[in-house]
Amino acid sequence: MTIKNNFLNINSLSNDEIKNLILLAHEFRNGKQVKLNQPIYSANLFFENSTRTHTSFEMAQRKLGLQSFDINPQTSSMQKGESLSDTVKTLQAIGMNCLIIRHKATGWYKELLADPNIKLSLINAGDGSGQHPSQSLLDLVTIDDEFKKFSGLKIGIIGDLSHSRVARSDAEILKHLGAQIYFSGPKEWYPKDFNNFGEYVNFDEIIEKLDVVMMLRVQLERLNQELVSSFTPNNYFKHYGLTESRAAEMKKDAIIMHPAPVNRDVEIASSLVESPHSRIFRQMQNGVFARMAILATILKNQGLLEEYKCKS
Amino acid sequence: MTIKNNFLNINSLSNDEIKNLILLAHEFRNGKQVKLNQPIYSANLFFENSTRTHTSFEMAQRKLGLQSFDINPQTSSMQKGESLSDTVKTLQAIGMNCLIIRHKATGWYKELLADPNIKLSLINAGDGSGQHPSQSLLDLVTIDDEFKKFSGLKIGIIGDLSHSRVARSDAEILKHLGAQIYFSGPKEWYPKDFNNFGEYVNFDEIIEKLDVVMMLRVQLERLNQELVSSFTPNNYFKHYGLTESRAAEMKKDAIIMHPAPVNRDVEIASSLVESPHSRIFRQMQNGVFARMAILATILKNQGLLEEYKCKS
Amino acid sequence: MTIKNNFLNINSLSNDEIKNLILLAHEFRNGKQVKLNQPIYSANLFFENSTRTHTSFEMAQRKLGLQSFDINPQTSSMQKGESLSDTVKTLQAIGMNCLIIRHKATGWYKELLADPNIKLSLINAGDGSGQHPSQSLLDLVTIDDEFKKFSGLKIGIIGDLSHSRVARSDAEILKHLGAQIYFSGPKEWYPKDFNNFGEYVNFDEIIEKLDVVMMLRVQLERLNQELVSSFTPNNYFKHYGLTESRAAEMKKDAIIMHPAPVNRDVEIASSLVESPHSRIFRQMQNGVFARMAILATILKNQGLLEEYKCKS
Repeated sequence: MTIKNNFLNINSLSNDEIKNLILLAHEFRNGKQVKLNQPIYSANLFFENSTRTHTSFEMAQRKLGLQSFDINPQTSSMQKGESLSDTVKTLQAIGMNCLIIRHKATGWYKELLADPNIKLSLINAGDGSGQHPSQSLLDLVTIDDEFKKFSGLKIGIIGDLSHSRVARSDAEILKHLGAQIYFSGPKEWYPKDFNNFGEYVNFDEIIEKLDVVMMLRVQLERLNQELVSSFTPNNYFKHYGLTESRAAEMKKDAIIMHPAPVNRDVEIASSLVESPHSRIFRQMQNGVFARMAILATILKNQGLLEEYKCKS
Repeated sequence: MTIKNNFLNINSLSNDEIKNLILLAHEFRNGKQVKLNQPIYSANLFFENSTRTHTSFEMAQRKLGLQSFDINPQTSSMQKGESLSDTVKTLQAIGMNCLIIRHKATGWYKELLADPNIKLSLINAGDGSGQHPSQSLLDLVTIDDEFKKFSGLKIGIIGDLSHSRVARSDAEILKHLGAQIYFSGPKEWYPKDFNNFGEYVNFDEIIEKLDVVMMLRVQLERLNQELVSSFTPNNYFKHYGLTESRAAEMKKDAIIMHPAPVNRDVEIASSLVESPHSRIFRQMQNGVFARMAILATILKNQGLLEEYKCKS
Repeated sequence: MTIKNNFLNINSLSNDEIKNLILLAHEFRNGKQVKLNQPIYSANLFFENSTRTHTSFEMAQRKLGLQSFDINPQTSSMQKGESLSDTVKTLQAIGMNCLIIRHKATGWYKELLADPNIKLSLINAGDGSGQHPSQSLLDLVTIDDEFKKFSGLKIGIIGDLSHSRVARSDAEILKHLGAQIYFSGPKEWYPKDFNNFGEYVNFDEIIEKLDVVMMLRVQLERLNQELVSSFTPNNYFKHYGLTESRAAEMKKDAIIMHPAPVNRDVEIASSLVESPHSRIFRQMQNGVFARMAILATILKNQGLLEEYKCKS
C-alpha cells in the first residue's frame, strides 16, 4: 500500500489500490456515508489558479465532514519568502491533518517526503509539468462508470500532449490497466517517450475505432511566445479539434472527455460539449467522489474514519 | 410565483410574493428557526468588490445552516477565459445547489436562464447597472419595519440616480406598493424615464414632507472622467447632501436611509449617520434577514426546508 | 479585569489575568472542552499578510466551535474608501460577535474604543509598529510550559528590536513577571527606552547565561531603503545570528524561540530551527491554545460559554 499517508503520484499505486479507489468513488456516488472519529482539519493551498479542482476538493472535504481551510498564498507569509517546507510545517504545528497542494514546481513534494518532521498527509493537486493525480483518478472513474472495464478499450488522447499534466499519467496507467492508447495532435507537441504508452496516429483515421476520445486543453498560458504567435484557434480546431464532422464518425457508444476548462471551438465544437456523447460535466461530478475516495482512504489508513453502508 | 428557483429581479415579483418575503424576514428577525432536509451547498461568486452584501449573504447562509463556499474569481479559472455559463455549470456539477453572483454585466443571468442544463438556483447580488434586488428587499423590510405600510408614504430618493443599482428598482416597486416617490439630486444625473415612477423635485422644498429620506451613494468609481474632474465633494454636499440644517426640517418620525458605504459629509453629514432618524445600520441588520427570507423561500419551493415556529 | 470584551494590549493586563490566560491555554492543550450557549460569529480581518496568525486564529475559532468568517480587505468595500470604524460597525450590524484585526495603523483600536456604538469584541492581531499581543501570550505560554515560572529567568531578545512588534511588549511583561531581560543585535536598531526593561549586552558574552534565546525576525520588508542596501545576510548572521558555534555555548536546558517566519541562516542557523533546543514549532502549536484562551475568556465574560473539564 503506497497510498498510506499521501496521494502524490497515481502511477506509483498498484492496480488493486486503484481499483479500490474507483470502487470507493462509485460508492460515494451511490450515497455511502462515513463517520469521523475525531475532528479532521484540512487546508487547501493553491499556488496556481483553479476553480474546478480547488472547489471540488473543498466539496469532498465538506461532504466527508472535514474542517476545510482555504490558505491563499497571495496573502500569506510565503510573500515574505518562506519556503514551502516551512509553510507546511507551520500548518502542521497549527493542527492541520491534511494539506491539498497545487504548486508550479514539478515534484514539489519530494523534498517534503524526505523531511522526517513532516507527518501530516499531503495530496497533490497538480505539480508543475508533473502530475495531476486526482484528475487522473476521476478520468478512470468516468471510464469505468461507462464501460465497467479498461482492458481492450481504445482510448485516444488528443491535443497539447506536451503541456498536459494529465496526458502522461493517464496514458501510463490506462495502458497498465489493459487499454490501448492512441495519441494525436500537433506533431511538434508530441513527446517522443509517449511511444512507451501508445502510438501517434492520424486523428481522422483512428476516430471511428475509439471508445474514448479524450481531448486536452490547449494551455495558451503555458505556451512559449513563439508558439503563441504562430498559433491560430481556427487552424488548430480544423486540424486537431473535435469538430462536428469528426464526431459524426465516432462509435455509437464512444464517449468524449476533456479535463476542462474547455476552449469551445478550439479543442472541441461548442455544440459537442453537452452532447449525448460527452462526459465532460460528468467528469466534474466524479471529481468530487474521486477526491472523497482519496481522502477517505488516507483517513481510514490512519484509523480516523469508520465506514457506513451505502444508502441504496 | 416567479420566485421559484431564482431571485434575480425584484420587479418581476407579485405584490403577494414581496409581502411574503417581508413577513418572512421579520420572522427571522424575531428568531424563527428552520431545518434543512439535506445538506445544501451554496457558493458566493463576487466579480465586483463587496463587504456588506457578500458577508451578509454568507451570514444568511450560515444562519440557515447552509454550507457556504467562497469562490474568488481572481484565483479561479475565469482567469483562463472560461465563460460565466461554463463556470456556473462547473459549480453545478461539483454539487452546488445555489449560487449568489455579482457581476459587472447587466442582466448576466439572462443567458443562463435560457440554458436548459442550468438547474441550480441563481441569486442576483448585483448586475452591472441593472438591479441589486436583495438590497431593494432589505429597503422594503426596513420601511415596513417602521411604518407597517407603504401606501401613502412619501419617499424621497436623492442623489446619484443614474449610477445607482437600487434607485430604479426601489422606485418602481415602492410606487407599485402605493408609495409616492420624489427624486432629487444633480439634474444631469436624473434619468428621464424616472418620471414613470415619481417626480423630480427641489430637495429643500420637499424634505419637510418626506417619511423616508433615502440618500444614494455617489459612486465615484463609476463616474466618467469628465464628471470626476468637475465633481467636488463640498459642493455636492452643499447642494444635494443631507446636511444638518436640511435634517432639521425633517418630520419627527421620518427616517434616513442609505445603501452604504456612506461617503460621510458628501451625501450625508457624518453626525447624522448614527442619529435617531437614521436606519442605516438597521438596514444592514435587515439585510441578513431579507437574504435569509430569499434563500429560505427558494429552498422551501424545492421541498428542502421545514419551517419551525418563531421563538417569541 | 481589563480583558472583559477586548484583547488589545497585553501590557494593560494584570499579572493575575495573564496567569489565568496561560493556565487556560495549558488546559486547552490538555484537551479541555467548552460549550457555546449560542452560535458565535467571528470574522478575521487581515490588512497585512499573514499565514501563521491568521490560520492560528481561525483554528482556535473552529476548535471552540465558533462560526469563522474570512474578510479579505482586498475585495471589500474598504477599497471604496470606507473607514475602519464604518467597516467594523457594518460587520457588527451583520451579526458578528467578534473581530480579529491586523492593521498597519499603530493603535488602530483606540478610535474604535471611543465609539459608543461599537459593542462587539475586538482582538488585536497586530497593530503597525505597536503590539502583537496574542504572539506575546504564546511566548509566555511557551516559556511557562518549559520552566513553570518566569521569576529569575534570564531571557535574551536578539536582533531587529526596532521593527519587532513583539520585542517591546514581551520585554515589558517578562520583566513585570520577574524575568531578567538582555537585548542584543545591531546597536543602531536598539531603541534607547528599552533600557527600562533590560540592558543591551554583547551576544557572545551573555549566551552561556541565558535560559531563553529569543531571536527576532529581520523584517526586510519594513527596513528603509538605506538599511536594505547596506544589509547583507551573511554579515548579519555572523555578527548577530544564532550560529552553531554560539548555540554550542547555550546552557543544557536553555531554549531557542523565534516568532517566525524564520530567515534560515540569517537570524539562526538552519540546522538549529528544529534542534532539541528549539521551541519554534512548539510556539506555533501554543499559538492556537493561547488564542483559544483569549477567545474563551472573552466569551465567558459575556456569559456565552460553559466550561467543561479537561479530558485528562
